[in-house]
Amino acid sequence: MHVVVNAATSADGKLSSRDRSQVAISGAEDFERVDELRASVDAVMVGVGTVLADDPSLTVKADDRVLEREARGDSPQPARVVADSRARTPPEAAVVDDSARTYVLVASDAPGDRRAQLRGDTTEVVEAGSERVDLAAGLDALESRGVADCMVEGGGELLFSLFDAGLVDELTVYVGSMLVGGRDAPTLVDGDGFTEPDFVDLALEDVSRVDDGVLLAYDVEN
Amino acid sequence: MHVVVNAATSADGKLSSRDRSQVAISGAEDFERVDELRASVDAVMVGVGTVLADDPSLTVKADDRVLEREARGDSPQPARVVADSRARTPPEAAVVDDSARTYVLVASDAPGDRRAQLRGDTTEVVEAGSERVDLAAGLDALESRGVADCMVEGGGELLFSLFDAGLVDELTVYVGSMLVGGRDAPTLVDGDGFTEPDFVDLALEDVSRVDDGVLLAYDVEN
Repeated sequence: MHVVVNAATSADGKLSSRDRSQVAISGAEDFERVDELRASVDAVMVGVGTVLADDPSLTVKADDRVLEREARGDSPQPARVVADSRARTPPEAAVVDDSARTYVLVASDAPGDRRAQLRGDTTEVVEAGSERVDLAAGLDALESRGVADCMVEGGGELLFSLFDAGLVDELTVYVGSMLVGGRDAPTLVDGDGFTEPDFVDLALEDVSRVDDGVLLAYDVEN
Repeated sequence: MHVVVNAATSADGKLSSRDRSQVAISGAEDFERVDELRASVDAVMVGVGTVLADDPSLTVKADDRVLEREARGDSPQPARVVADSRARTPPEAAVVDDSARTYVLVASDAPGDRRAQLRGDTTEVVEAGSERVDLAAGLDALESRGVADCMVEGGGELLFSLFDAGLVDELTVYVGSMLVGGRDAPTLVDGDGFTEPDFVDLALEDVSRVDDGVLLAYDVEN
C-alpha cells in the first residue's frame, strides 16, 4: 500500500499545545490542499488519540471533489481508518458516523463490548495484532478490502509506529509560522523515538510557500 | 539587545534524540553559515543543558573570520554566554576555557562554591534573578558590558524562556531531512509551552535550500 503522511506543525514541530487542544496552524490555501489530497486517496487514517482529542470527520468537504470521485467510479468519500488498539473510539465519534465507510483497526485483546458498540452498517472492526495493532498486518487487511493508497493525518504516536515499521512512502508537512512550545506538547513524531543510527532518512522533494507558512514534501527512504 | 536564535532541527522539530546525544542534522554548507553568523555577533549564548549535553566551545572556527573581526576592532572571538541558574557549568567545560570571554548568567541562589570555581581571567559570573536567571536582566547586564547583539543556539528550555519573555527578534531554523521522533526528545522550544492565544507569531522572511534540507528565517512578532 502507498502511504502518505500529511500533517501541519508549528515551526517547533508541535501538532498541538500541551493541553492537546486543536491549534489553527494552517490557513485556507492549505485547507484546500488537504481536502484535495483526501479526495485523491482510498482511505484517510488517524490514531485514536486524534479522534479523542479533535473528533475529526476526515471527510472530503468540497462537493465538486466528491462528484469527481463518483465520476471516476470511486465511493463519494474515502474510507476512514482509526488505529485503535483497545477500541477506545467513542461510538458517537464523527469518524464512525454514516457519512463514509470506516475501518477501526484493533488488537485482538480489545474488549469485545467496545468492539460490538462500534460495529455498524458503515463501520467494520478489523483485528490486527494481539496487544497493540500490528500496522503492517492492518494495512494488508485494508488492501484486501480495496484500499490501495492511504493518507495518514496523525497523531504523533501513530506516525512514530508507522515510520518505525517502515510503512510510510511520503511525508508532507505544512510548517506554520508560529511557536507552540512545551516539552510535553504532541510533536509530529512522538513514540519512543529513534536513536543513532536508526533515524528516518528523508529526501526533500519540494519546498513551497503556502498561506503564511511553508510546505515541505519529502520522500521517505526506508 | 538584538537577539537572533539559530538552531537545527529534524523535520519533526527535534534538537536531539531522546538520549540527548548530539545529532548531525546539518551539513557543511550550514556549518559555514553558522560560523559566519557567530562571527557577526558580539556574543553566542546557550543554556546549561546544552553545555552539559554537548560541551560546545561556541567559537568561530574559520581563521579568516577571526581576522575580519580583529580588523574591524572586535575581539577575535565573540563572547560566550551560558544561562545557568544554579551554576552547574563544569569548570572544565570548553565554554569556559580561555579561548574567548565568557559570561555565566546565574541566579542569586546559585551556590557560592560553584560560582567561585567558574570565575577566572576570561570568565565572569553575572548574577541576574533570584531562583532562576532573569533573562531580561541578564541581557541588560550583558549590554552594559558592550554586548549589542547576541546569537542563541539553544537548547529548548532556554529558547522557551527567551520567547516567553519576548526577548527574541529573529529565528532561523535549519530543518534537516530526517526524523528523530520521541515524545521525550528535546525540541526547538520546550519549557511549559504556550497555550491559546499566547502562541508566538512569526513572519516567514526567507526560505532557502541548504545542504539537503531547508533554512527557514523568521522575524518574531512580539
